[in-house]
Amino acid sequence: MKLKTIGIDLGGTSIKAGVVDAKGAIIASGERPTLAGRAYQDIIGDIAGLCADVAAAAGISLCDIPAIGAGLPGVVDRRNGKVYLTNLFWEGVPFEESFRQYIDKPVFLTNDANAAGFAEAKIGVSRDTEASVFLTLGTGVGGGVILGGKIYEGAHGVGGELGHMIVRAGGRSCNCGNSGCLERYTSSQGLIAQARELMGEYPSSAIVSLCGGDSKNLTPKIIFDAAKSGDELAGRLFGEFVSYLALGIVSYINILDPEMFVIGGGISKAGSFLLDAVRAEVAKAVLFKALPYGRIELASLGNDAGIIGAGLLARGER
Amino acid sequence: MKLKTIGIDLGGTSIKAGVVDAKGAIIASGERPTLAGRAYQDIIGDIAGLCADVAAAAGISLCDIPAIGAGLPGVVDRRNGKVYLTNLFWEGVPFEESFRQYIDKPVFLTNDANAAGFAEAKIGVSRDTEASVFLTLGTGVGGGVILGGKIYEGAHGVGGELGHMIVRAGGRSCNCGNSGCLERYTSSQGLIAQARELMGEYPSSAIVSLCGGDSKNLTPKIIFDAAKSGDELAGRLFGEFVSYLALGIVSYINILDPEMFVIGGGISKAGSFLLDAVRAEVAKAVLFKALPYGRIELASLGNDAGIIGAGLLARGER
Repeated sequence: MKLKTIGIDLGGTSIKAGVVDAKGAIIASGERPTLAGRAYQDIIGDIAGLCADVAAAAGISLCDIPAIGAGLPGVVDRRNGKVYLTNLFWEGVPFEESFRQYIDKPVFLTNDANAAGFAEAKIGVSRDTEASVFLTLGTGVGGGVILGGKIYEGAHGVGGELGHMIVRAGGRSCNCGNSGCLERYTSSQGLIAQARELMGEYPSSAIVSLCGGDSKNLTPKIIFDAAKSGDELAGRLFGEFVSYLALGIVSYINILDPEMFVIGGGISKAGSFLLDAVRAEVAKAVLFKALPYGRIELASLGNDAGIIGAGLLARGER
Repeated sequence: MKLKTIGIDLGGTSIKAGVVDAKGAIIASGERPTLAGRAYQDIIGDIAGLCADVAAAAGISLCDIPAIGAGLPGVVDRRNGKVYLTNLFWEGVPFEESFRQYIDKPVFLTNDANAAGFAEAKIGVSRDTEASVFLTLGTGVGGGVILGGKIYEGAHGVGGELGHMIVRAGGRSCNCGNSGCLERYTSSQGLIAQARELMGEYPSSAIVSLCGGDSKNLTPKIIFDAAKSGDELAGRLFGEFVSYLALGIVSYINILDPEMFVIGGGISKAGSFLLDAVRAEVAKAVLFKALPYGRIELASLGNDAGIIGAGLLARGER
């Protein structure tokens, strides 16, 4: 199939879409604000409008597009196609049915982290692996499990929600209703929440001055940069972050034993500073010291991974 | 293939083997003590001897056996076939090579919990499921993940070591070197260790009298029976046990989202008393309340599951 598809990456802040070719190259792309909180019909109308825009920008007609793929920030009920997207306040929205009122093409839906992990496994750092685990460390923690070149979604579409593995029973409260989910310790939200709690103990920390004394200005970058410069509070926060991420990876090894872990999301921009520390911690904590285990690598496709993965998914190779 | 195979279930205490037909029925079986600590050649010689015994008991010649399967209490290095069995002090034993000096047949190796889970998925409670997770709650916690009718072993043979998912970072020390593994909370070892710690606080507990004041006599059955009768300490221990098991299951749902969980091992003999409590806790803690999730059931094949699974595995349908 040499035809091009459209990949959509729907987020809480923006809708992104692109025309994607058979090799996963983005021919043209565009973006609109999500304006979460609007009626779903309006958002889906905007998504369809954006699809028309990117097709035009790529110089092709929508008639030439066999199908559309979308990565969504939530889950799809495989029984009826209804989608549940917490950040958009969507509880059981019939996405494909609604979308096809604008553009009558088959729509392939998956979770956004699944889409990004799929892109990495098809054309990115984890290409040619039989089993890879993608972790996106951003506001929260998303996950994608790719087995045998396909997205592993489990029996009910919930598989790969890796950020909600419980790593500390009775620990930090999570939005999901449980406590101690990995997401609470290895996301920017989790990191910043922990920084806020500890800033009082370290009044002379560089973190305090770098955010002008206001924890609202804190970012993972501020904390990681301060850790690199030897700041004590930042070092503690970074150490805890790495320790939890490594424990999470060790658990995934003991469950899924992939060929490769791919670390993406905003926090992965910390690059080798983060990667080297995580690799060292995992090496210490891995269960069978005599056996090899999955390599840990940084994602290679950046913010485009979601569009690419959704576009490739629309080729029906899920 | 209508031929029969032999399935071996190697444990720290005993070696079990049986002749298994194409439907998973055991035609004849036998058992010898493992006598762990002996040279591996001696144990493997005994395993081969037991294979000859059970073939004779089934009235067939070893010549009629195309292959042999074995479930081992540990992992197999897929690069070279060497096996690592902690309880037997085997660190890199060439099992198949050594076994074939006695009986020159192909040997299919897997982890013992994988074998039991495979048996349940082929002919037991989880038959006809696309994805099932088997948990054996015994001295430790073993796991088996069966996807698409095959044992999922991951890229390096470590997949499915479910008892070593970390559920409480910084928690109880585990034999594996980490802390807070699920096994430390939902095995008989974990349950009894917790009981020992708390017995001093509850001197009038039925548990104390039932074990004659000596915690060495404690068993999960004593604790569960006392919990059923309303004993306060036992109720607390049972509640914590169930809570951790449910959190573990919720994490597996978020990662693997199977069609069914199968609970086996000695502790599963607690039956519906345990099952009902676990189901209720999982229902409260599951991430997506609007979506269905895997049923939780008791294993159906009992102690034979290991032999049956290994026998079926030898048919090459792994």
